[in-house]
Amino acid sequence: MNIPRTSAPRIVIIGGGFGGIALAQKLSKKEVQVVLIDKNNYHTFQPLLYQVSTGGLEPDSIAYPLRKVLIGYDNFFFRLAEVKKILPESKSIKTSIGELTYDYLVLATGSETNFYGNTELEKNAMAMKSIPQSLNLRSLILENFEQALLTDDYHERDALMNFVIVGGGPTGVELAGALAEIKKGILPKDYPDLDTRKAQINLVQGSDRLLDAMSEQASTKAEEFLEKLGVQVWKNVRVTGYNGKTVTTKTDLTFETATLVWAAGVKGATIRGLDAEEIIARGNRLNVNEFNQVMGFPEIFAIGDIACMQTDENPKGHPMMAQPAIQQGKLLGENLVRLIDGKDLEPFVYRDKGSMATVGRNKAVCDLKNFKFQGVFAWFVWMFVHLFFLIGFRNRVVVFVNWVYNYIKFDREARLIIRPYRRNYSQFKD
Amino acid sequence: MNIPRTSAPRIVIIGGGFGGIALAQKLSKKEVQVVLIDKNNYHTFQPLLYQVSTGGLEPDSIAYPLRKVLIGYDNFFFRLAEVKKILPESKSIKTSIGELTYDYLVLATGSETNFYGNTELEKNAMAMKSIPQSLNLRSLILENFEQALLTDDYHERDALMNFVIVGGGPTGVELAGALAEIKKGILPKDYPDLDTRKAQINLVQGSDRLLDAMSEQASTKAEEFLEKLGVQVWKNVRVTGYNGKTVTTKTDLTFETATLVWAAGVKGATIRGLDAEEIIARGNRLNVNEFNQVMGFPEIFAIGDIACMQTDENPKGHPMMAQPAIQQGKLLGENLVRLIDGKDLEPFVYRDKGSMATVGRNKAVCDLKNFKFQGVFAWFVWMFVHLFFLIGFRNRVVVFVNWVYNYIKFDREARLIIRPYRRNYSQFKD
Repeated sequence: MNIPRTSAPRIVIIGGGFGGIALAQKLSKKEVQVVLIDKNNYHTFQPLLYQVSTGGLEPDSIAYPLRKVLIGYDNFFFRLAEVKKILPESKSIKTSIGELTYDYLVLATGSETNFYGNTELEKNAMAMKSIPQSLNLRSLILENFEQALLTDDYHERDALMNFVIVGGGPTGVELAGALAEIKKGILPKDYPDLDTRKAQINLVQGSDRLLDAMSEQASTKAEEFLEKLGVQVWKNVRVTGYNGKTVTTKTDLTFETATLVWAAGVKGATIRGLDAEEIIARGNRLNVNEFNQVMGFPEIFAIGDIACMQTDENPKGHPMMAQPAIQQGKLLGENLVRLIDGKDLEPFVYRDKGSMATVGRNKAVCDLKNFKFQGVFAWFVWMFVHLFFLIGFRNRVVVFVNWVYNYIKFDREARLIIRPYRRNYSQFKD
Repeated sequence: MNIPRTSAPRIVIIGGGFGGIALAQKLSKKEVQVVLIDKNNYHTFQPLLYQVSTGGLEPDSIAYPLRKVLIGYDNFFFRLAEVKKILPESKSIKTSIGELTYDYLVLATGSETNFYGNTELEKNAMAMKSIPQSLNLRSLILENFEQALLTDDYHERDALMNFVIVGGGPTGVELAGALAEIKKGILPKDYPDLDTRKAQINLVQGSDRLLDAMSEQASTKAEEFLEKLGVQVWKNVRVTGYNGKTVTTKTDLTFETATLVWAAGVKGATIRGLDAEEIIARGNRLNVNEFNQVMGFPEIFAIGDIACMQTDENPKGHPMMAQPAIQQGKLLGENLVRLIDGKDLEPFVYRDKGSMATVGRNKAVCDLKNFKFQGVFAWFVWMFVHLFFLIGFRNRVVVFVNWVYNYIKFDREARLIIRPYRRNYSQFKD
């Protein structure tokens, strides 16, 4: 990998998400060598991926070059690589570009879509966890309408204009809301020769309420907002399969659709070599102690989605979202320096800053610790918080410009099929 | 294709470039049916493609959804399709989504990269005529540097950091300038562990001066600007081949490089059925009369790059750039109405608004009819003109924001490998 060994201890961070970046930044100017490895050369601001899928934003405004994260820090090395295996006994990792030894290893690999072993779903459903996936979904949505124009078979046309989103968490709610706004504001203008009133957005939730990690109040209001926008909300429905044509559920209910978006679960993105049964927690996460140390491996740490730190307040681990990752990354940065200096480590205490989700223009729900609110103000708070946490000044300006434009013009101009996903949709032709 | 035949004559436009859009807009609100066909669902602002390749802009800010071009005009139809063949005898076209009859047909298909029959070049060189091609080049440039970090073979490393651009027209000059600025401003910061001084930018021109369609003054100054930026300019050099490793020329001169960009020629993008020898002019363009009528086909017209209208001032046809296309599109819009009304047509007269090219920050060359100038002022004029001709208000704002940011920060933040082009470059390993 051509990374020189210096006298400073080497800290290898796998993953440039919220946690990995927060950690790397804390370590800058410290007497350590930092090696950041990611399979992409950019950080992805995942909370806004749904806006890429729905043509509201371009990828570059929610991505940030990882090489820029620690610019000017001499002992920082970035490598674009996939980590294949961890070898704790030799304190080294195997990657797509060679082996590397470490003094301390931090897994900040995040999470990946969980299809719960259903290979049919995995094959036919669209996921939305990465930028290429989001762009594929954008292409497919647009291709579906182009295709719907051409068919005289109304079953096929309906299926092409029917969107089934599985999973009523923030991702599902936000995507459903955005699609509903496209249906209302853009489709009739873009496709005057298509009866776009027949477009359907179905949001399918397994439990008995949407946003079930948030307050009842937020759930009720989000559902109300979605129904106002024309989204069909299905609760207590468990999807069992999708053959590319028909979505089946545990009951008689089925959906005929060309597009199923799977936002119904994530699991930790583990790496071989550190996946022994005793350290794997629920959801494929790694059991860590209060210092984010992986159980049994004093030099290996895990932060963010991949880490499962069981506390009294969070007996199943912290929620898999940005805040725990950022807070753990920052503390671990300090703790690693303490560890190297032979000092005692600080235990992690999660400061819950609340959670929020947006449904559409002027419509969002916010749960803060002592204050729950919904509607226009919540929507402004949502925008402010997302702009604040977005990395990079230019990104903030470009996202802001796009949001203002989209708001005023009821528009989303990035409705471009740059790389066609599946141009000739013929599954319904037999 | 599901397009109803109405009493209004049907005008089918193939291609949503500068010419096709100008024509369609002229025909809006007229008593005609307009069918616009393009293989993409967006218009591409080709003059700024090189900024996509070099991470300065994202595709959405230089693309514009074609469905938005004639929004609100009832008798306008857009279809995403590839036209396979023209059948003048039955006044119809064959496309990837079926057949369509026309009353008037307008070819606005533009041009494509001309490799002059050299299949080896075509296979191994990068072109930059479309957004996907530009994104591929962006990925490849970045992948090359990631790869260069990993190798201990200095031949391989040099080749990965060596860029050969063939063609000294505006595209080649602008790309070479942008790469030189990246070498100077970004590489040393992004790759502190790589000796990026060894990165080379070679611009190879077949004739004895750069920008040979512009004034001598512009050529001289552009070359001076490029050399100041550290670009190696090679004149009177004809590239004969590239096997993915070595560029050969007509003389002994060779280049070892992982990246050859071919910007050395374009040809008209003709369609089968309208390619009889007698109507094909030099550069694969279609011979048209002063009304842009294709010789021998009174209902078929060609505008822009694909049209070759020989005049006293332009005996080889008009230059293949935006202005002739826009002007011909506008006039043809009026002429088609005249034709339908049984009136006499107006002949086309080209108003040469001049030409320009930019080399880098504060460095551009402009040739207006009676005024030639270079440097900072030319650069401001270049930016103003490009913002003015860019389609869409949002695009203008986003491009402007990016330009201001890039100018102040000496930065280009879209250096993202979203879709890897060729991650493991091993051609040099044997």
